[in-house]
Amino acid sequence: MKRFALNSATTKRWPLPDLVAGCADAGVSGVGLWREDLAAYGVEAAAALVRDAGLTVTSLCRGGFFSTPGWLDENRRAVDEAAAVGAPVLVLVSGGLPDGSRDVDGARAHVRDAIGELVPYARAAGVQLAVEPLHPMFCSDRCVVASLGQALDLVAPYPAETVGVVVDTYHLWWDDQVWAQIARAGRERRIACFQIADWVTPLPAGVLLGRGLPGTGCVELRRFREAVDAAGYVGPVEVEVFAEEVWARPGREVLDEAVAGYLTHVA
Amino acid sequence: MKRFALNSATTKRWPLPDLVAGCADAGVSGVGLWREDLAAYGVEAAAALVRDAGLTVTSLCRGGFFSTPGWLDENRRAVDEAAAVGAPVLVLVSGGLPDGSRDVDGARAHVRDAIGELVPYARAAGVQLAVEPLHPMFCSDRCVVASLGQALDLVAPYPAETVGVVVDTYHLWWDDQVWAQIARAGRERRIACFQIADWVTPLPAGVLLGRGLPGTGCVELRRFREAVDAAGYVGPVEVEVFAEEVWARPGREVLDEAVAGYLTHVA
Repeated sequence: MKRFALNSATTKRWPLPDLVAGCADAGVSGVGLWREDLAAYGVEAAAALVRDAGLTVTSLCRGGFFSTPGWLDENRRAVDEAAAVGAPVLVLVSGGLPDGSRDVDGARAHVRDAIGELVPYARAAGVQLAVEPLHPMFCSDRCVVASLGQALDLVAPYPAETVGVVVDTYHLWWDDQVWAQIARAGRERRIACFQIADWVTPLPAGVLLGRGLPGTGCVELRRFREAVDAAGYVGPVEVEVFAEEVWARPGREVLDEAVAGYLTHVA
Repeated sequence: MKRFALNSATTKRWPLPDLVAGCADAGVSGVGLWREDLAAYGVEAAAALVRDAGLTVTSLCRGGFFSTPGWLDENRRAVDEAAAVGAPVLVLVSGGLPDGSRDVDGARAHVRDAIGELVPYARAAGVQLAVEPLHPMFCSDRCVVASLGQALDLVAPYPAETVGVVVDTYHLWWDDQVWAQIARAGRERRIACFQIADWVTPLPAGVLLGRGLPGTGCVELRRFREAVDAAGYVGPVEVEVFAEEVWARPGREVLDEAVAGYLTHVA
């Protein structure tokens, strides 16, 4: 249980004060937050809420979306918020193709350059950027970074202490290269964040909200945890599930089920 | 136009005699068929229909689904049908994980062994097997072969003239390794079939029926055609689109639009 962390996206409709109280009550010491949480409660108020309950913020989601106008200022604000709330890591989801574009190479080159532009600011703020490869089904509309190997190639030009990668079981489980790439990520000191969700079918329309709590799907979750451990990762294990049917349930019930799934299938 | 072929799945509700007459009228000389077409019209009758119209069968879809009981007999029947209808290539979709399984390595090992069991039969029948990597979003329920590199590794133990791979733009476009793997597929003489569909979002529930006709999405289709050409592929270019909204339209209208999209975005 020491490494378990609840990502607030898993209990999207649980108000932050209730989530924080629920985590403290359940013996959960880490929470991953979203910028939406900070916007709703105020950065300082949210930071105080978490700190006063004896919790730590394990990550802030998310920066990135480099295809959006104003991305640089927006990402600097995200870095500032991560620093203010004590999140060691800011998760970056790159964004997809610009509207009407077919130039995936160009979009990827822009992501590489954009990260480079953000690096000095993140380093000065003491926040590690974490590039998250999303499942290839999001390549066009959310994230042109579609595999762990690609993410590692992309971040290679930048210092590991400032730019790492996210290993998320939901996005990576299908890849026959993932075990070799996790080992590589360890050698290159790039694993900044480890997130857990399970894969369940059929996928819903739009495919964003189709994830399962740990143990409800077909992913070898423990194998992933053992692989990141073997690669030298010693950080938190965040359960991050997006699913309408999970969101519809009481937050504490979801948290308890996430903990139980973690203990049975991950720890 | 010489290389254009219509895969019958694109016009799923167009009866085969109409499809064949429509292709002949439109100057299309190749059709990719499905076993469902043969079941509906009879193998010999379908073969005669196509032959009498002066068309050739470019591929038969599909064998595979090695996770299903009775897969070997079923795949032998599929090989027989390909031979009987004059299809040089039988497309294999591997199948996903067995119900309740999380053992993706085991499923992949079984696919490798199953292909090995099928090879002598296919060779004797003069039919080339073509392993199709599907998009990773199908990994759990339809196809544990999720990238071109993985497909090439999987077929490596078997003779290239008997076991090749399918390059399908819809399934592969997101992969930053795909260009290198197409070149490799050429060096290894493995490109058995080339299929075209475009990627459009948002995906529908279940994600199977979300493809677009050539030019309606974000895939660099011509780049793929040029890449398979550069890899030595000289065969047909099959347009294969599954989409409810395409199926709802008259077959000839869809064919004409597929041809126009091919000429503008692929040829």
